[in-house]
Amino acid sequence: MTIQTNSPLVEQRADPFVHKHNDGFYYFTGSVPTYDRIELRKSKTLAGLKDAETVDIWFKHESGPMSRHIWAPEIHYLDGKWYIYFAASEEGDIWALRPYVLECKGQDPLNDEWVELGMMQAAEGDDKSFTDFSLDATIFENNGKRYFCWAEKTGGQFAASNLYLAEMESPIKLKTVQFMLTTPDYDWERVDFWVNEGPAVLKHNGKIFIAFSASATGACYCMGYMEADENDDLLDRNSWTKTRMPVLETDVDKKIFGPGHNCFTVAEDDVTPLCIYHARDYEDAVGEPSVVPKTDTRSLAEIIKDPLYDPNRHARVFAVKYDENDRPVFELY
Amino acid sequence: MTIQTNSPLVEQRADPFVHKHNDGFYYFTGSVPTYDRIELRKSKTLAGLKDAETVDIWFKHESGPMSRHIWAPEIHYLDGKWYIYFAASEEGDIWALRPYVLECKGQDPLNDEWVELGMMQAAEGDDKSFTDFSLDATIFENNGKRYFCWAEKTGGQFAASNLYLAEMESPIKLKTVQFMLTTPDYDWERVDFWVNEGPAVLKHNGKIFIAFSASATGACYCMGYMEADENDDLLDRNSWTKTRMPVLETDVDKKIFGPGHNCFTVAEDDVTPLCIYHARDYEDAVGEPSVVPKTDTRSLAEIIKDPLYDPNRHARVFAVKYDENDRPVFELY
Repeated sequence: MTIQTNSPLVEQRADPFVHKHNDGFYYFTGSVPTYDRIELRKSKTLAGLKDAETVDIWFKHESGPMSRHIWAPEIHYLDGKWYIYFAASEEGDIWALRPYVLECKGQDPLNDEWVELGMMQAAEGDDKSFTDFSLDATIFENNGKRYFCWAEKTGGQFAASNLYLAEMESPIKLKTVQFMLTTPDYDWERVDFWVNEGPAVLKHNGKIFIAFSASATGACYCMGYMEADENDDLLDRNSWTKTRMPVLETDVDKKIFGPGHNCFTVAEDDVTPLCIYHARDYEDAVGEPSVVPKTDTRSLAEIIKDPLYDPNRHARVFAVKYDENDRPVFELY
Repeated sequence: MTIQTNSPLVEQRADPFVHKHNDGFYYFTGSVPTYDRIELRKSKTLAGLKDAETVDIWFKHESGPMSRHIWAPEIHYLDGKWYIYFAASEEGDIWALRPYVLECKGQDPLNDEWVELGMMQAAEGDDKSFTDFSLDATIFENNGKRYFCWAEKTGGQFAASNLYLAEMESPIKLKTVQFMLTTPDYDWERVDFWVNEGPAVLKHNGKIFIAFSASATGACYCMGYMEADENDDLLDRNSWTKTRMPVLETDVDKKIFGPGHNCFTVAEDDVTPLCIYHARDYEDAVGEPSVVPKTDTRSLAEIIKDPLYDPNRHARVFAVKYDENDRPVFELY
């Protein structure tokens, strides 16, 4: 078994998400550089994901909701059905990111039909969730409850992006009103933009960790995590503590720049926890005109400076270790 | 010494603030029902504040900044000078609340000249503080550092009102970028509006408590507190815990409705900690047309339903006790 090497797991796929299913396959999705589709691939081995056949299971609309910025899809298997959660904006309002849901009509997500279930719905009485720039939803279960965790800005595109948490009533609707899990508190979460995003859940010895990414999408991008006891009320502010410093950040010597937006899965031994994340292998992002939508009216000079259109965020992997206090260690190698 | 009775300390003064000075006098200010001026009074005894002579030391402008909603003044003595901090909006934008500062040119705050120092200034590099609905600033010192704590909404009038904390560089400017101390997390902070406001600081046996008020300005108004160790970094999210339930709320039997927006001072024995707060003695607020500005164009029917123009929030007092864990107990009597 090869858990990892320093070479990318999958090239040019950002916001990587891996689900190891009960059929023994790793299912992989992520943001494609053109931000115009949702792609799936699967493999019995992690290394096999790199060259596995990719299937485009959904394309963006021409206009209206879900017509721009198809970002950070995750595939989840809930109550016997496959779902994909992703964020999208629209041509008429390109920063109006909202979370959307797809459902697979069959059991083979690479080949069966997918249908749109629409936008994720807030709980009754919640007039705040999904009303502003919101993205990066993930789903997890704890003590018999299912949770939805996402990033949202309140106050427009240049406000702080916080992480919110709520219980789910169904795959398409929340049960509880939003709870703010974390806001950018420390310097390392506030570089260029104030950002907490890309939540991912890891459990170990009675503790639950929600890793997240912080700051803008450049070499300053980095990771921290929130920590709680599995038996505490996850919607109680006092249940959580936060890492004072980043736990994963740019490593110039290893040529890992802006690591973040991770997910967790397990190695082929079904025991070793793995962190799948993305990073660039050079410091200054360079926008690639060929992946920019034709509807983008900016000059070439502006596009070249836009890190969002640098296609070279590669999915990478390392094994998570635990320290003497049972806290995860995020060590690049 | 009479610490308190159930009768009001000062009638028709909301957001009460008391500073016990080194001259032995209690200095009292608060929001007056017309929201058009800043008033001061002083007394050697707390009971004497009720009928002490009041001096109007400042009046609102006719238009522009500081022309409407003169709210929650506090008087502080910093580095040998008197300052008043208050919130105000303007006739042209009545919810554009911002914090302003007055400085006294002499040592007698009731008789000497006051000058306007302008709006409180955010730290270099902080483009978020005082840019939206912000009010209720208080000032305190801890371990040789001076702090500014205030309420601000990010995202307009109907967003959540959070509490923020920062170190001060001078009486008119912050030294550090804002840190979010608390956001409305629990049900009792989210009634009608999501509100944390009215911070007030209390210290006891190495602990620092920041009490605050929560929910809308009706009978649902109530109080909780944040708690930290005095020696911890007060700008670190992990230093603080929050009361899971309110510590002071409406008591129908005692005819105390919507208690909150408190300050702390000390009794005439210079030892007993006192909580000065406001409350109504009936449940449903009734707007009083005579205190409403002439520029308000609403109908009489609307004004009568507006709790902001019910003048009967009276300043009240009780002695704070401590439980076996050295935590403050807020008990009405």
